[in-house]
Amino acid sequence: MRIAVLGVGLIGGSVGLAARRRLDAEVAGFDPDPARLAKAEELGAISSRAGSLAEACDGAELVFCAGPVAALPALAAAALEAAGADCTVTDVGSVKGEVIERLGGEGRFVGGHPLAGAETAGVEQARDDLFDGARWYLTPTTATEGIAYDRLQRALADLGARPQAIDAGAHDRLMATVSHLPHVVANVLAGRAVAALDEGSGRLPEIGPSFRDATRIAGANPAIWADIFVGNRETVAEEVESAAAALSGAAELIRSGDRDAVAAWQREAGERRRLLLEDDLAGGPLQELRLLVPNRPGIVAEIALALGEAGVNIEDMALYPSADMSAGAISLYVAGEEEAARAEGLVRGLGHDATRVER
Amino acid sequence: MRIAVLGVGLIGGSVGLAARRRLDAEVAGFDPDPARLAKAEELGAISSRAGSLAEACDGAELVFCAGPVAALPALAAAALEAAGADCTVTDVGSVKGEVIERLGGEGRFVGGHPLAGAETAGVEQARDDLFDGARWYLTPTTATEGIAYDRLQRALADLGARPQAIDAGAHDRLMATVSHLPHVVANVLAGRAVAALDEGSGRLPEIGPSFRDATRIAGANPAIWADIFVGNRETVAEEVESAAAALSGAAELIRSGDRDAVAAWQREAGERRRLLLEDDLAGGPLQELRLLVPNRPGIVAEIALALGEAGVNIEDMALYPSADMSAGAISLYVAGEEEAARAEGLVRGLGHDATRVER
Repeated sequence: MRIAVLGVGLIGGSVGLAARRRLDAEVAGFDPDPARLAKAEELGAISSRAGSLAEACDGAELVFCAGPVAALPALAAAALEAAGADCTVTDVGSVKGEVIERLGGEGRFVGGHPLAGAETAGVEQARDDLFDGARWYLTPTTATEGIAYDRLQRALADLGARPQAIDAGAHDRLMATVSHLPHVVANVLAGRAVAALDEGSGRLPEIGPSFRDATRIAGANPAIWADIFVGNRETVAEEVESAAAALSGAAELIRSGDRDAVAAWQREAGERRRLLLEDDLAGGPLQELRLLVPNRPGIVAEIALALGEAGVNIEDMALYPSADMSAGAISLYVAGEEEAARAEGLVRGLGHDATRVER
Repeated sequence: MRIAVLGVGLIGGSVGLAARRRLDAEVAGFDPDPARLAKAEELGAISSRAGSLAEACDGAELVFCAGPVAALPALAAAALEAAGADCTVTDVGSVKGEVIERLGGEGRFVGGHPLAGAETAGVEQARDDLFDGARWYLTPTTATEGIAYDRLQRALADLGARPQAIDAGAHDRLMATVSHLPHVVANVLAGRAVAALDEGSGRLPEIGPSFRDATRIAGANPAIWADIFVGNRETVAEEVESAAAALSGAAELIRSGDRDAVAAWQREAGERRRLLLEDDLAGGPLQELRLLVPNRPGIVAEIALALGEAGVNIEDMALYPSADMSAGAISLYVAGEEEAARAEGLVRGLGHDATRVER
């Protein structure tokens, strides 16, 4: 199989590596940055460097467009022009509306979006197993040729991914909710805290773990996120406005002072989060175990090692150091009652306090 | 010194333990739940069980009211009535407005709020070092007797805390911003995602790490949080409305499609978060190191152990397992360039990929 990869960053490079090793494909790479292209070849992510987009597409059965989100519609259009009549062209952008609006009528084009890879990483991070088990959304239209879709989804499955078709608009709404909105919200929370500082005595507020978690993604890579926000602007704006309306509703509920109603709302939120997060967990619902430990180098290791040796898998973890960094709480999340009970026993065996957090 | 602790949960129990061991105090405990009171005595958190609030306060120089937030104003009022003319009474509630409105004119009362302890834990988790280095806000008023304030803040410093005076209203606004608002926002995000599910094809959305972090606190302990929200209702409602307005502004900015302005906003958010989080870190600004590793038991331990043995302290950590749990990314946060470079070398030495995430 002959594949072209246009844009050799983390995603393009990983496609190349996986295609070469798993599909035994010949991978022609092209990138406007010659140094990046040379690096991709050096890492084995591509079989050969093409001097132009057209050269890369020449003879390819499958073309992956893996440039920056904002560049993808033009890149995919150029690829369709350069590629043969029998070639399937796809992209890997995290926003699909614009590219589908432009190319949704092209039978050889299928929009795509793998949920894998840190957005800030480069080709140096490319791995042939990056897509193992990862959802890879595909956005076919009524114009999409069956053979083009079939070839693509088969290749993606061979790369290790789990392809799934979704309407482009539904995809962008879903991403607006579960990815783009949290980023906007994190920015707003960081802004509110700085405003509180300005309005107050100039005292820098003590930042707790809840604030830290809630703003971890504030200000993530501005170049990439400006592209995503602008690329999905109508849908993100609507989603953000819906969230603003929901906040206003919450403000009204809280202001009413109806304690039972507020408690019911809080309970419902907990149930919703569990519903969203626990779908795929083998072993049962996520259990939180809270540990209180001295904050010395190696402490996390000791605990994780003890759990690891006993075969208890840590699904998630959060560290909450105390203000002076001398001690801290660790939240460990494990799947299911049984694992949680085992983890609790192991942690206590190490001499640490551990409690199950009831939610 | 004779101290009374009214309500022996995590905070009250830890006050008792620390006061007994560090201040050599005699600690009389009272709690409406006899089993909890017996447990506190068994754990050494109190010197003696009192049969009533009045008995506990009898002869005490310092009374800590450590019941549920909603019960504190009445509890503190009863304590003031029972306590001697020379006794200082304080509380540990995370909302201060109501108790100060009721008791701010009492010279012997000083409101307090330690930033320590998981809200869901019980007396079993009490520790004598819970407050080491922790900020302990105090909310004196013009009526507060100097001797009462001085005795309290001296005792708190001896318990290991860092007492700081703050106006009760300013305290509640600060908490509304950095603690209560993030909880409301997490609830709203969880609600939006479930709504997206309902409106869509019934497909459960794939939940990424950003959503997970942003909603970790959704639906936290409903009984406690209903008390906090209702106890601080006006201020929380105003803060939530301000956040809603900020979201509307963000929606407008994004809808404008002005990429440069959106990128500038994103950059500013990143700078704000760094400003808020890095104030107290020795070693320099927080650095994120992203690792890609197989998701097998013990892997976190290996890495953390290697770093711990080399004296590299992990300030924060987040695990992002892949969809099929077979592999995953780990973000490690360490303080300062030098530590980050060492951590990167150590991780690479273990054979894992590691990149510094530029923000």
